[in-house]
Amino acid sequence: MKKILIATTALVATAGFASAEVAISGAAKMGLQYNSEGATKTQVLSSATLVVDMSGETDGGLTFGANMNIIIADNGSVANDDTTVYISGAFGKLSMGAVAEADEVAGLADIGWDGLDVDDVAEAFVGDELGDIDYFEELSIGGHNVNYTYTSGALTFSVSAAMPTGHGADNQDDYAVGVKYTFGDAYVGLGYGDHSYSATYSNSDVEKESAKVTSLFAGGTFGAIKVAAMYSDLSYKYSYYDDSEDLTSKYSASGKAYGVNVAYKMDALTLSMGAAQAKLDGAKQTSFGVGAAYDLGGGATLKGGIASIKDQFDDENAYAEKETRADFGISFSF
Amino acid sequence: MKKILIATTALVATAGFASAEVAISGAAKMGLQYNSEGATKTQVLSSATLVVDMSGETDGGLTFGANMNIIIADNGSVANDDTTVYISGAFGKLSMGAVAEADEVAGLADIGWDGLDVDDVAEAFVGDELGDIDYFEELSIGGHNVNYTYTSGALTFSVSAAMPTGHGADNQDDYAVGVKYTFGDAYVGLGYGDHSYSATYSNSDVEKESAKVTSLFAGGTFGAIKVAAMYSDLSYKYSYYDDSEDLTSKYSASGKAYGVNVAYKMDALTLSMGAAQAKLDGAKQTSFGVGAAYDLGGGATLKGGIASIKDQFDDENAYAEKETRADFGISFSF
Amino acid sequence: MKKILIATTALVATAGFASAEVAISGAAKMGLQYNSEGATKTQVLSSATLVVDMSGETDGGLTFGANMNIIIADNGSVANDDTTVYISGAFGKLSMGAVAEADEVAGLADIGWDGLDVDDVAEAFVGDELGDIDYFEELSIGGHNVNYTYTSGALTFSVSAAMPTGHGADNQDDYAVGVKYTFGDAYVGLGYGDHSYSATYSNSDVEKESAKVTSLFAGGTFGAIKVAAMYSDLSYKYSYYDDSEDLTSKYSASGKAYGVNVAYKMDALTLSMGAAQAKLDGAKQTSFGVGAAYDLGGGATLKGGIASIKDQFDDENAYAEKETRADFGISFSF
Repeated sequence: MKKILIATTALVATAGFASAEVAISGAAKMGLQYNSEGATKTQVLSSATLVVDMSGETDGGLTFGANMNIIIADNGSVANDDTTVYISGAFGKLSMGAVAEADEVAGLADIGWDGLDVDDVAEAFVGDELGDIDYFEELSIGGHNVNYTYTSGALTFSVSAAMPTGHGADNQDDYAVGVKYTFGDAYVGLGYGDHSYSATYSNSDVEKESAKVTSLFAGGTFGAIKVAAMYSDLSYKYSYYDDSEDLTSKYSASGKAYGVNVAYKMDALTLSMGAAQAKLDGAKQTSFGVGAAYDLGGGATLKGGIASIKDQFDDENAYAEKETRADFGISFSF
Repeated sequence: MKKILIATTALVATAGFASAEVAISGAAKMGLQYNSEGATKTQVLSSATLVVDMSGETDGGLTFGANMNIIIADNGSVANDDTTVYISGAFGKLSMGAVAEADEVAGLADIGWDGLDVDDVAEAFVGDELGDIDYFEELSIGGHNVNYTYTSGALTFSVSAAMPTGHGADNQDDYAVGVKYTFGDAYVGLGYGDHSYSATYSNSDVEKESAKVTSLFAGGTFGAIKVAAMYSDLSYKYSYYDDSEDLTSKYSASGKAYGVNVAYKMDALTLSMGAAQAKLDGAKQTSFGVGAAYDLGGGATLKGGIASIKDQFDDENAYAEKETRADFGISFSF
Repeated sequence: MKKILIATTALVATAGFASAEVAISGAAKMGLQYNSEGATKTQVLSSATLVVDMSGETDGGLTFGANMNIIIADNGSVANDDTTVYISGAFGKLSMGAVAEADEVAGLADIGWDGLDVDDVAEAFVGDELGDIDYFEELSIGGHNVNYTYTSGALTFSVSAAMPTGHGADNQDDYAVGVKYTFGDAYVGLGYGDHSYSATYSNSDVEKESAKVTSLFAGGTFGAIKVAAMYSDLSYKYSYYDDSEDLTSKYSASGKAYGVNVAYKMDALTLSMGAAQAKLDGAKQTSFGVGAAYDLGGGATLKGGIASIKDQFDDENAYAEKETRADFGISFSF
């Protein structure tokens, strides 16, 4: 939250150079996590993150930078927790790396300390969360790595895509667009994500699969209350052309997901509530949770939450069909 | 050793926030390591470590922080060399991550430059060193990850445990307590570690295993001489109940380990000597080594040592039964 | 390029300590890479690098330090991009870790943004590039990890070697020497690399393999023009003594590689050209490329290049026999 500014390069910069700087800050957390369906119900979690913010400006007024988050959780290995590089100017902002998916215009906040994934149910079909569902045949939806965002007054327009980072074969197309309109402390947004797979095999068979998602977002801060809501609609299509039999099999399905998050702030204390539901091809997922956060000052916040999650999607988290989750801990920012 | 303080957040801190800061420092080393039993007897070693110390204070006077050590050895991969998160106040200090095991009240210093593991023989049964011995059936002793320490005057009391970091099955119990009394520049300490495994299998068989270790510590600095000694006693029990035959087989063993380290400081030069012995169920381990360190100033220290180690425990380091080890190098702190 | 100096330890240094400090800087890049032979021809690349420079000085005037480069590419894992530790004084400079191979006295600059490997053809037999060729039977040439360099006026002498970093078996010998003479803004250099494998097997067979490389370098900056050229000559020998038949089979081969790089600087714009050829045992490799870089100020540089590479060596990069490569992007330094 708070950034530690390292002395700028003024001392060593050669003449004619604009200032470029590296700012170091950090975050840490320690606490407990509970899951009613775990063989071991209660576990501990601790982590520390080194945050590196690099920024500069060209002679022509373009700003650029990079943000690295280097995390060590439970005294384990050194890991990357999102790294982004960007350049920005009158033309907008172009980012690469751990960019936001443009259709996730305004995701919901999670409930709890480290997070109980209450928001994941509402967000099941938007952004890279769609990739967590094992429902698809060949679609392998990962995070986007290129984002272009243009802001004009109250309107923000974004487009993002997953572009190949190697020269190997690539049968996936994965992009999204989003627009957000801000008025006062409130906003509305519209997102669209398009994910498709298409391959012609050596035996001349053709396989096609697509998931298209339209999403709506609204929210705002009204006095002590902060509200955010979202709705999304998934349209899924699959076809397989068998060349030897000259036959095409088709299949389609649809899904809907929606959710809300409300937070109420009283001085140092913030209470929050989240609820969501998602349906896909007969399966249903629901979540409900409440949480509290107490600001101890100096960058320390005590947080906790409890939630009930019903998960019928066959997703990568392999949750039990219905489970109670809770967490409690303290988060630090340096 | 010396810490580089980065400018505090004063410049950007919002009003009412106490100061939180990130301090960056570092360490590095380069030198040679010798082992009489190696196919290649002499090897090189170099490493660099980035040390990140984050600290802050709540409005109510609690202090908190995190310490990350990011090491790269022999130009290899980026690794974590101990990361800890803590919060501290009148109630004591609670740490998570790479915490000290409470029963290792005062371990011995090692001999040599990068270290020849002379102290490991004396420490064989305390802290997480016990996990290096392959003697046990099911016990899998790792480092503790939660430590609570309370200091009142000359008395320091600690308790630590290995708590689960996942929701999977956990048949291990692993905790320790320690107490240390300091008078002048000297100390005495008492530690107790309890490690147990207990499982009831699907065929109703029951397996139980435990290792209990009591340890004593004493040491101090007397003029130019620094002395540290320790003794530990291991009591091991194993039982297996075979349900189909309604029969329980039992087994027990005991171990003893002790050692001493003496250092003599003459201006920039420090000479040191270490000796230790450990016995477990008929097997014996001994170590003896001498070392020297010369402080070059500015954070650079020249160090070296030579040791003779006899290792009859079947431990994870897979040492030869008797080997001569030596190392020589320079250590830097920034 | 530009370094951010963190406040020195003056604030916390104990009396009598010379100053040791840790300087943090950074680099980042974002752009596109093209390969005519890729299943996917165009890919994106982004990366951010945290650069940690530690330095200090002993009371006796020796300087020492360590340099760590921690890189995250394409929002992937945290990786080491060269880490070196050194100590330096009147005796010269001793470095360990990611050191320069002494026979690569003055490698050529690459062409393009992230680099199209145009220089790799000229450098095919020098430094650790020789290890990229899969031509050898048992020789496994990696980078050197120890370098000693002594400079006296215009003359710089270096020796480097790959020394074992473990106690396992080692049948390889790998060292190099180099000398460089500088006059005005120009230089000439001479390098020699010796790589050999020798093993006597349990059946008394003896296998020997060696690659010896002599290289010549010349270059300089003449007004707006910067030129660098190099030539190298490889002599390869292989022998296998079959003890059961008392028979030795022998084989030898030779190779030649040479290349040039020319850069022309007009204010913020730099144009560059590179060309090279390498021959080994009947196979041929050629490269030709042109590139441009435009300095935007503030640490940002726009760069691009296009090259044609013919690769008949069976090397680890598994290039197609002939391919067109291009890249275009922006590089940042902080």
